Amino acid sequence: MKERQLLMLPGPTPVPPEVLQALARPMINHRGPEFKALLDEAAEGLKEVFRTSQEVLILTGAGTGAMEAAVSNFVSPGEQVLVVSIGSFGDRFAQIAERFGAKVDKLEFAWGTAADPAALAERIKADVDKEIKAVFVTHNETSTGVTNDIPALRAAVGDHPALFIVDAVSSLGAMPLETDDWNLDVVVAGSQKSFMIPPGLAFACVSPRAWEVAARCTNARFYWDLVKARKSAATGQTPFTPAIPQVAALVESLRIIRADGLEDTFARYRRLREMTRQGVRALGLELLAADAVASTAVTAVLPPAGLEANTLRKAIRERFNVVLAGGQGKLDNKIFRIGHLGYVHELEIITVLAALELTLTLCGHRVELGSGVKAAQAVVLAAVGA
Amino acid sequence: MKERQLLMLPGPTPVPPEVLQALARPMINHRGPEFKALLDEAAEGLKEVFRTSQEVLILTGAGTGAMEAAVSNFVSPGEQVLVVSIGSFGDRFAQIAERFGAKVDKLEFAWGTAADPAALAERIKADVDKEIKAVFVTHNETSTGVTNDIPALRAAVGDHPALFIVDAVSSLGAMPLETDDWNLDVVVAGSQKSFMIPPGLAFACVSPRAWEVAARCTNARFYWDLVKARKSAATGQTPFTPAIPQVAALVESLRIIRADGLEDTFARYRRLREMTRQGVRALGLELLAADAVASTAVTAVLPPAGLEANTLRKAIRERFNVVLAGGQGKLDNKIFRIGHLGYVHELEIITVLAALELTLTLCGHRVELGSGVKAAQAVVLAAVGA
Repeated sequence: MKERQLLMLPGPTPVPPEVLQALARPMINHRGPEFKALLDEAAEGLKEVFRTSQEVLILTGAGTGAMEAAVSNFVSPGEQVLVVSIGSFGDRFAQIAERFGAKVDKLEFAWGTAADPAALAERIKADVDKEIKAVFVTHNETSTGVTNDIPALRAAVGDHPALFIVDAVSSLGAMPLETDDWNLDVVVAGSQKSFMIPPGLAFACVSPRAWEVAARCTNARFYWDLVKARKSAATGQTPFTPAIPQVAALVESLRIIRADGLEDTFARYRRLREMTRQGVRALGLELLAADAVASTAVTAVLPPAGLEANTLRKAIRERFNVVLAGGQGKLDNKIFRIGHLGYVHELEIITVLAALELTLTLCGHRVELGSGVKAAQAVVLAAVGA
Repeated sequence: MKERQLLMLPGPTPVPPEVLQALARPMINHRGPEFKALLDEAAEGLKEVFRTSQEVLILTGAGTGAMEAAVSNFVSPGEQVLVVSIGSFGDRFAQIAERFGAKVDKLEFAWGTAADPAALAERIKADVDKEIKAVFVTHNETSTGVTNDIPALRAAVGDHPALFIVDAVSSLGAMPLETDDWNLDVVVAGSQKSFMIPPGLAFACVSPRAWEVAARCTNARFYWDLVKARKSAATGQTPFTPAIPQVAALVESLRIIRADGLEDTFARYRRLREMTRQGVRALGLELLAADAVASTAVTAVLPPAGLEANTLRKAIRERFNVVLAGGQGKLDNKIFRIGHLGYVHELEIITVLAALELTLTLCGHRVELGSGVKAAQAVVLAAVGA
């Protein structure tokens, strides 16, 4: 018998059983009243998670598709944009913008650190002719486990007219994000992270100001045309045949998220992050991100000297069926990443730490068995003041 | 209790129970060995359905996304293309090509008829400077239930160097299509038709000649970049997080398709088409498409005089939970469409005809009860020589 798999990725994340069941329902007409009811309930629930009074569009595809939409609907060829990048997904925004003909200026920070709002303010201030039409920012950089301070970065742009566009693919629902209150123009997200449903859907929320830009944007787009998506959404439809199972699943997962409440969910994720970080530290391993900028969605860990990250990942998967993420781009084989969002709770973190202790030992790197687990347990008790 | 729904659409089509169950499996790592095994098996099975020795790429999105890929990877801005259109989806190819900067020449035929190969040959012959870089053709026009003669249209292009690009979204697996033998350069398809899985995936097959064009194509693309998808596919991955449930379902459905055999499946669809057409005719209703070009995937029917198509559709859905498709674009409310592909068999066609007889009568249009059913039953018996 194959052991139960512990999927500890920053997406796809584990899916609750009632949500899995919703995936297996018979097909329905995507132009009929049953689907309209699903889409309307999902869109309404998404507004609560996005913290917006604007509509949220439901698109079929990966989060990267919504990132493309965030470029091709708001930036015309030849226009100047500024991409703030702290890792692989920040770089992706820059690549997409380049592919769609933008003049891309990149404000980069070392992988594992967060963006410095003062540096952004300086760059914005230097743009006296207001050439920059959009600023692209990653909220939670999945590749490094670092969270940017979006309100501070938004403040750094100030009253410069550039649109402020946020990749919230791995952050939304995993940490506070206030689309309206933070004055964000475009926010995009994906389904397979904190939404606890499988990959296949992406979401986009657009400010009135950004809709005006979209109306005159000349860039090439059809499938990811948000104006078209908005027009369909107004009739309870999507412009093209949607991933119906994921929409049905989303309705179920949003019910769970609403019942739990966003604040309690965020508190749980903060606790899981602390358990992970304290546990890993107790084993003598180094964390990539500093505490102040550490993500509540995913934690990046450096393996002990002499042990390659991918060797460790392979060993823990083959021996214990625990799936950890690897490093991306220049961090490949240098780090491993523990996802702790979605349908994940305290005992899973403890289990993973126990498996990590065993695997490190089996890989020839002796650690004190139980020490990581104990540190994580202490976080659980501290959270209830015990 | 709600009555069992009969979903008679040209997509999404009903999904077999074992395929539905595959959708509800726990999530796995899309960068791990379990997913690689699924993707490899699916890609191998797809090659059999596409009748090709080339690889078939699995993309996450609607069929329209693959249509966009068929434009943006092979046509550079400013290039001339010829779009053969016999309906709504032919028009869509033209719209996408325009959005992506092509100079679009449209060869149109009346909705409900097929494209005339002689007219295409004439247009191609007139292009003495070989300005046309690609010819776009719809195999099965879902909006009208008409099937184009692809080998004849391909022959009409002859040795003109234009790429021959086929929308097979609703045809592939529902009628013969020979990607290699017919010398097709790009063939795109969707998941929610004859593949009997929910919407969420699209497929693309590309000839060596077309890959060369893609390598120098300057059009804007990122999410739908097929070169990138091909590079990932070679490692058993997708460039962006895929719709994992649909890939697992596809593996199951391809097992069914292989076990049934393509030829037997095509014969079944031809039988379902004949049952539908004979049944509808026996009720005195008019068919949009002539017999010679009638689709094995979907049949378009004109309602009796004095009864609007959408009134009839609403009545049959509300009273009997039978879901029929409406007309698209200029055919809206003028026709209704009966899908007969995917997980659909003889008794479903008979059931739908019985419901149609009852609904027509309830709508004030008297028909002889049982006459449509009887005509369809005769087709079943004739098929076995009884």
